[in-house]
Amino acid sequence: MSIHPFDAVKDYEVRLAAKLVKDSYPASANVHFCQIDRFDPPKEDMKKYIIAEREGLPLPRISRVLYCYYYTNTTEFNKALVNVTAGHVITKVQQPKGVVGPFLPDDVIEMEEYIMKHPIVLQEIEKLKLPKGYQVRNDPWIYATDDPNEKRNLIQFYMYVLAGNGHSESNHYSLPLKFSPVFEQFTKKFVRMDYLPGGFDHTTVPTQPWQQVPCAEYHPDLNGESERPGIKPLLIQQPDGPSFTVRGNKISWQGWEFRVSPTAREGFACYDGWFKGRQVFYRISLSEMTVPYGDPRAPYHRKQAFDLGDVGFGMGGNKLALGCDCLGHIKYFDGMGIHGNGEPYIIPNTVCMHEQDDGLLYKHVNYRNDNAVVARRRIFIVQTIATVANYEYIINLKFANDGLIDIEARATGILSTMPIDQDVKVPWGTIVAPNCMAAYHQHILSFRIDPAVDGHKNSVVYDDAVKLPKHPVDNPYGIGFVTDRHFVEKAGHIEQAPFKNRTYKILNENVINPIAKTPVGYKVQMPARQMLLADRDSFNARRAKFATEQIWVTKYRDGELYAAGEFTQQSQKDTGLAVWANGVDNVRNDDIVVWATMGFTHIPRVEDFPVMPVEIHNIQLVPANFWDKNPALDLPQATNAFNKSVLVQSEEEKSCCKSRI
Amino acid sequence: MSIHPFDAVKDYEVRLAAKLVKDSYPASANVHFCQIDRFDPPKEDMKKYIIAEREGLPLPRISRVLYCYYYTNTTEFNKALVNVTAGHVITKVQQPKGVVGPFLPDDVIEMEEYIMKHPIVLQEIEKLKLPKGYQVRNDPWIYATDDPNEKRNLIQFYMYVLAGNGHSESNHYSLPLKFSPVFEQFTKKFVRMDYLPGGFDHTTVPTQPWQQVPCAEYHPDLNGESERPGIKPLLIQQPDGPSFTVRGNKISWQGWEFRVSPTAREGFACYDGWFKGRQVFYRISLSEMTVPYGDPRAPYHRKQAFDLGDVGFGMGGNKLALGCDCLGHIKYFDGMGIHGNGEPYIIPNTVCMHEQDDGLLYKHVNYRNDNAVVARRRIFIVQTIATVANYEYIINLKFANDGLIDIEARATGILSTMPIDQDVKVPWGTIVAPNCMAAYHQHILSFRIDPAVDGHKNSVVYDDAVKLPKHPVDNPYGIGFVTDRHFVEKAGHIEQAPFKNRTYKILNENVINPIAKTPVGYKVQMPARQMLLADRDSFNARRAKFATEQIWVTKYRDGELYAAGEFTQQSQKDTGLAVWANGVDNVRNDDIVVWATMGFTHIPRVEDFPVMPVEIHNIQLVPANFWDKNPALDLPQATNAFNKSVLVQSEEEKSCCKSRI
Repeated sequence: MSIHPFDAVKDYEVRLAAKLVKDSYPASANVHFCQIDRFDPPKEDMKKYIIAEREGLPLPRISRVLYCYYYTNTTEFNKALVNVTAGHVITKVQQPKGVVGPFLPDDVIEMEEYIMKHPIVLQEIEKLKLPKGYQVRNDPWIYATDDPNEKRNLIQFYMYVLAGNGHSESNHYSLPLKFSPVFEQFTKKFVRMDYLPGGFDHTTVPTQPWQQVPCAEYHPDLNGESERPGIKPLLIQQPDGPSFTVRGNKISWQGWEFRVSPTAREGFACYDGWFKGRQVFYRISLSEMTVPYGDPRAPYHRKQAFDLGDVGFGMGGNKLALGCDCLGHIKYFDGMGIHGNGEPYIIPNTVCMHEQDDGLLYKHVNYRNDNAVVARRRIFIVQTIATVANYEYIINLKFANDGLIDIEARATGILSTMPIDQDVKVPWGTIVAPNCMAAYHQHILSFRIDPAVDGHKNSVVYDDAVKLPKHPVDNPYGIGFVTDRHFVEKAGHIEQAPFKNRTYKILNENVINPIAKTPVGYKVQMPARQMLLADRDSFNARRAKFATEQIWVTKYRDGELYAAGEFTQQSQKDTGLAVWANGVDNVRNDDIVVWATMGFTHIPRVEDFPVMPVEIHNIQLVPANFWDKNPALDLPQATNAFNKSVLVQSEEEKSCCKSRI
Repeated sequence: MSIHPFDAVKDYEVRLAAKLVKDSYPASANVHFCQIDRFDPPKEDMKKYIIAEREGLPLPRISRVLYCYYYTNTTEFNKALVNVTAGHVITKVQQPKGVVGPFLPDDVIEMEEYIMKHPIVLQEIEKLKLPKGYQVRNDPWIYATDDPNEKRNLIQFYMYVLAGNGHSESNHYSLPLKFSPVFEQFTKKFVRMDYLPGGFDHTTVPTQPWQQVPCAEYHPDLNGESERPGIKPLLIQQPDGPSFTVRGNKISWQGWEFRVSPTAREGFACYDGWFKGRQVFYRISLSEMTVPYGDPRAPYHRKQAFDLGDVGFGMGGNKLALGCDCLGHIKYFDGMGIHGNGEPYIIPNTVCMHEQDDGLLYKHVNYRNDNAVVARRRIFIVQTIATVANYEYIINLKFANDGLIDIEARATGILSTMPIDQDVKVPWGTIVAPNCMAAYHQHILSFRIDPAVDGHKNSVVYDDAVKLPKHPVDNPYGIGFVTDRHFVEKAGHIEQAPFKNRTYKILNENVINPIAKTPVGYKVQMPARQMLLADRDSFNARRAKFATEQIWVTKYRDGELYAAGEFTQQSQKDTGLAVWANGVDNVRNDDIVVWATMGFTHIPRVEDFPVMPVEIHNIQLVPANFWDKNPALDLPQATNAFNKSVLVQSEEEKSCCKSRI
């Protein structure tokens, strides 16, 4: 089968691109890659391609292009675009000083190991006078930004005691230390030793012998828990196989058709979505996530991760396992990582796909005779899970059998912790274990929705539900309410207004619903949330303008994929929505992109430690006057002949051997 | 097994109570019941009972008391409390004129049939000159309130054409008619013929011959759909049986223990909840729901249902069926209805209970070596489904294996529709079928949470996440934020503040978390929502003050169970929270009740017709510094040996017979 323009990057493409880039430099330039992936094909070409594909016409030829991020001469950061179909480098641009690429996992691990042998670090560790069986472990952290003049590529290392008598899975996050070295990447130069406060304010003290406290362990080998009894298998059996088919990267399921492509930066992108023969979207993906912390003390004020731009969500993609990360009949796609030399490697099973039953979809009972109609909601889930050092993020794109799409994020993993002295409390954190504090922080995710509601010319409106004024004839009892529609004309954001029931819709004004007599559309449904708490003039806000508003609309342009801009590590400002949401571009009845911000302020609970039960957040895309009736009327009625459920008896019924049904 | 004070009412108890009440009147009084159910036992007695029960001590004797609502002499409405343990009537109170009891389903159906033979109605039907094969059907509607002097018990009948050539399941809601008679209950007197507007304003015209339009049918026999192909069975198999046990009405599952009692008014109540040996709640139930419509024209201004108080959610409880309403191993409880003579009847299987897998509960991967810990979220669901004429409501109480409780409502069924002339649009409704409009409306549900967080003395706080002011030393970069805590001291409400991340917590100030060093508690987590849109001085608002704010706190008092008060039908005002949230009662460190309002403004979509895909809303109760660590660390790790999932191949892999794993 020939390659599709939306197929994920292939290993031979990565090799070719890396070779072409390397060959374009002298060997002495020492080309060192940090990310290589497919560059999205031009949309104008793909519009023609999609039409030809659906109509069975000859397909236009579309070149496969890869982007390569790499360093030359140790510290010069470059970006190249490479046409791997034609076999040539399209452009090569050395980025301005201070622009830093995403971390390559190999490089971070190398630094993590390197600093543990560095004499200055060893000297601090020595001062801890650790008891036997205890070691030190570090977590490299993105350095973030507090200085407009900083041009070096820096890493901050947070240091922890590793208990557990050498058990690799001991929870070092429970035992944070009070020194934190900073090194320069690549040159490996020691920059500075930061000392961390233990009290209420920013006061620090030189490293003292470590005061032994119990470690809050999560691993079953170490956590001291006896296994909770009584949980019995609950098996998802699909005797006739799954209801979906996979051809190349194209999924077909219950009227839905779309393509899934794992990517280095986003985890995966979903392309070219149709439901029951009508076009719904061009591309949906997570676009960026920023995680700023609220502890104002140095160096914590620099804790602001951009989990896509700084590392790559796909680069932290988990190797998902049957029966662990999802149940039932599972199809996996692999991701692709690279080494510094440009050699690719497979990240197996980084995206999983499966079906779930999701309760009732609709029901009605005619009370006159008890006749019931009932159909069940089935969903198809595309899932990826990324580990970003301590945290895990589960991203689910769920397609429902009534045309709804649910974008779900589940946050789990381990809190990023700070040392705290005994008997101290701070107003910006929760004590989650002895001498261990988890600072308040926010997770602000931008989902990029490139809609194609019955075609590419779409508009965005918001509808408010507002009272009708009381009026002796028109509203004598003061109970009337109506909706008030506002069109978004120019690229920008829409303010939240939950008390007006503000509802965002993507419409196609060129297609009128024959029943409702209004434009066809999809709702973007999400609860109102607190956005970025940092001051508007702070680095946190300047670097993540996307995180300050809950929904944005921009005019579509090729290459505008990432909400905070292309290069986020140690960025000084947002070069994404801050630029594109310019108040100038027309976004009405045009090719547009909608950016939905999902935010949650995380005030840690003790229950979130040592490993967090998921916190779940959702954004839904819901057909709204898109169809001329419920599009799920063609579902079969739910019956036990099909679903084979089983009646349970109470203990009394069991003991007297009688059945009540 | 002896009866438990929290057991649902028994048929012999209903019979005895009815007999005792009837015997206390002369036969000529013609006692006619409309609701009989168990009256909650006094909490002070139950506190002692619960302790004795848990400690294995002799149990205090607690009488079973039933309440009876009934009419005497056709129109006098009465309430009696009957001690069925001792066998005597405790109190009998004739209610003031104008106080109306809940509808008895038998009575409504009698009226529904009665009016179809009434000459005035027949005369209007005649004018329709219906084509052959068409009939007329009516939906009796609660009359609601627009006149302080109205003392009669009235019913408004909305009239529809029944197409479908005599098929009982034809969707009459698609074909609303323009006349609507009002009758008096019991006396069956004709009161008035209302005519319904068809244009933009309140203008009405005399009944005309019916203009034939297509009917939007939902029933598979009638909807003209070919069944969607490709859906394959997805079976929930529990080869070792369920993980829960049922003893009487007590459920034990994964550390949770509680009792489930079907009730006539609420559907069910959950009592005496403990997780892993610690007390969490005394009682949780849906308390009231009001559904006001936004079409200001007469008689629609009176469309304001109280689905619990006006009829009884349990009285509309569906007979749930294996493999239809829930999947897996299912335990059912029966509900209990009555006839007007006080004779009880079983509503079989009105509450169902089962387990579900619910994705990942927690995961962490040590990126250094790819070692993963992963446990799955399992939930136990208590479900009831009530049909309220056109609408269906699914209420799920979901208990999770980490101590969380999720209260979920799914709204489905059929929209309440109004006639609309061709080529007319109105700003308060959506055209959902030819000549058929669904008015905007709201669903506002009050969930009553009677907490017992480590005991009965609890407090409520709200915590806001607020910026720290910028400060050269304490917050030099303007990124700091803290929480700001407010205690609720007096019975009242708390305003919503999503942009402050306002978080509501139920605390026990007498128990300090040993790790966090703060009071133990549970969060009440819910998104900010638009509350009642009607004017504050409208009947809608005066009757449903609970619906004007999202969270309320009151001091516990026996018998205060229903948010809008005990008698809602044709009520003039809210006699529930409007009275109890009095700004006077102490609610700090006291026995308190929290009332969480779930609201959704429903702007109908065409896709909501002829039967609605579920709209889903949730409120969560989340342990927050209740435990000293994640209480789910004792769960077994997820493995495929346990979960038995299956790998799916793509079409290409199948055709070339190769496996990739």
